[in-house]
Amino acid sequence: MTEKPTIAILGGTGKEGRGLALRWASNGYQVIIGSRQEEKALGVADELNQILGKDLILGMENSQAASQADINVLTVMASAHEPAVKSLKDALRGKILVDATARIKFPNPKPPEPPSAARLAQDVLGYEVQVVAAFQNIPASSLQDLKKDLDSDVLVCADQREAADQVSELIRGAGMNAYYVGDLDMAVTLEGITAVLVYLNKYNDIKHASIKIVGS
Amino acid sequence: MTEKPTIAILGGTGKEGRGLALRWASNGYQVIIGSRQEEKALGVADELNQILGKDLILGMENSQAASQADINVLTVMASAHEPAVKSLKDALRGKILVDATARIKFPNPKPPEPPSAARLAQDVLGYEVQVVAAFQNIPASSLQDLKKDLDSDVLVCADQREAADQVSELIRGAGMNAYYVGDLDMAVTLEGITAVLVYLNKYNDIKHASIKIVGS
Repeated sequence: MTEKPTIAILGGTGKEGRGLALRWASNGYQVIIGSRQEEKALGVADELNQILGKDLILGMENSQAASQADINVLTVMASAHEPAVKSLKDALRGKILVDATARIKFPNPKPPEPPSAARLAQDVLGYEVQVVAAFQNIPASSLQDLKKDLDSDVLVCADQREAADQVSELIRGAGMNAYYVGDLDMAVTLEGITAVLVYLNKYNDIKHASIKIVGS
Repeated sequence: MTEKPTIAILGGTGKEGRGLALRWASNGYQVIIGSRQEEKALGVADELNQILGKDLILGMENSQAASQADINVLTVMASAHEPAVKSLKDALRGKILVDATARIKFPNPKPPEPPSAARLAQDVLGYEVQVVAAFQNIPASSLQDLKKDLDSDVLVCADQREAADQVSELIRGAGMNAYYVGDLDMAVTLEGITAVLVYLNKYNDIKHASIKIVGS
C-alpha cells in the first residue's frame, strides 16, 4: 500500500479501542470508531477529536464502519465476541479482521482452553476474511497516554502470513514492535498472557504490566 | 533461611539443567546434578566443575539427590515428566519441587491444553510436596553463557505463595527477576509461551528469544 489504510475499530468505544484510535489517528491514519449504536460511536469520536485537537476520527455504526475500512480491529468485551463476529460477517468479506479478544474473567482469571477466540472467529467468518490476533497484551491505559512511548511489544498470530505482515505494519505505525508467532491456534497463549498480566499487577510491585521480547 | 539452600536439579543432565547448575554454583549455592543413572550425573557434574574451575557441583542418582536437597528442580524432557514425578514422590516428601516442564512438540508446537504439567505433578505428589512452576521460558543457551547477564524474567506459579517466594529468592540468586503470577493452573500459559518463543526465533530476526516484564 502506498497510501495509509483506513482502520475501523469495531466495538471501539471501550478503553482499548479508544487507545488504539488515538495512537493511529495521531500517526496519520484515517480511523473510524464503530459501535452497535451510531450515536455512541459519534460521541466517542468527538471526545477523541477533542483530545487530539483536530477532527481526525469518524464515528459510525459497526457494519457501516467495517465496510468503509481497509482493516478492521475488533475490541469488544469477551461476552460480545461471538455475536459481534456473526453479525459482521457480510461487512467484513474480503477484508482483514484484527481480533484483540482475550476471554478472561475478572477478578481471578484462568487461562482459557483452546481453541483461541481468534480461531473461533476465523471458523465463523471463513477464509473470505483474514483473521489476525493481536493487542491482547497491550494495556489500554498505556495506549491512551499519548505522551508516553510504548515499551510493550505486540505478538501477532494469523493463518496467512501476508495478513499478519500488513497488520504488523499498522502496529509499527502506532509506535510498537510486532512479532509474528504462528497461526491462530497460538493465540490462546496470548489470551492466557492477559490473565498473567492481571496477576503481575496484583501480586508484584508493578502497574500496567506488559511484556517485551528480548533475545540476541 | 540464613544459610543458602542446597539445590538438586533432577534430570539435570540436559541443557536447561546444566545452565541452572552453573548459574547457582557460580553464585555460591551447593548444587547436586541428579540423573536416573548416577554415572551420567557424575560425568556432567565433572564437566560443569571444569567450566567453573572448582569442584562445586555434586552428581547423584535422582532420588538420592532429592533427599539431600532443600529445594529440587525438575528439568526432564516432557515425555519423562509423569514417570519422573511418580518415581520421586517419596524422596520429595516435605520439600519444594520446582517444575520447569513445558509440554511442547518440535518443530511445530501448539499451546498445551489445561491442566498444566505442574498441576498434574501437584496432583500426583499431594500437598506434602509444594510444587512451583518456573523457568519454562528461559533459554538454556543464555543460562550456560556465564559471561552474559540474563535479561529475561522468570514467571513463577504455585498454590502456596510462601513456596513461590522461596523459589523467587533462588531465582534472584541466579541473577534473574522473579514474578509471582498465580496458582498452578496459570502455568499452562507459561508452557504456551515456550511455544511462542519457538516461533519468535523461527519467524523473526531474533535468537534465544525470551520475555521481559515491563510496566510502570
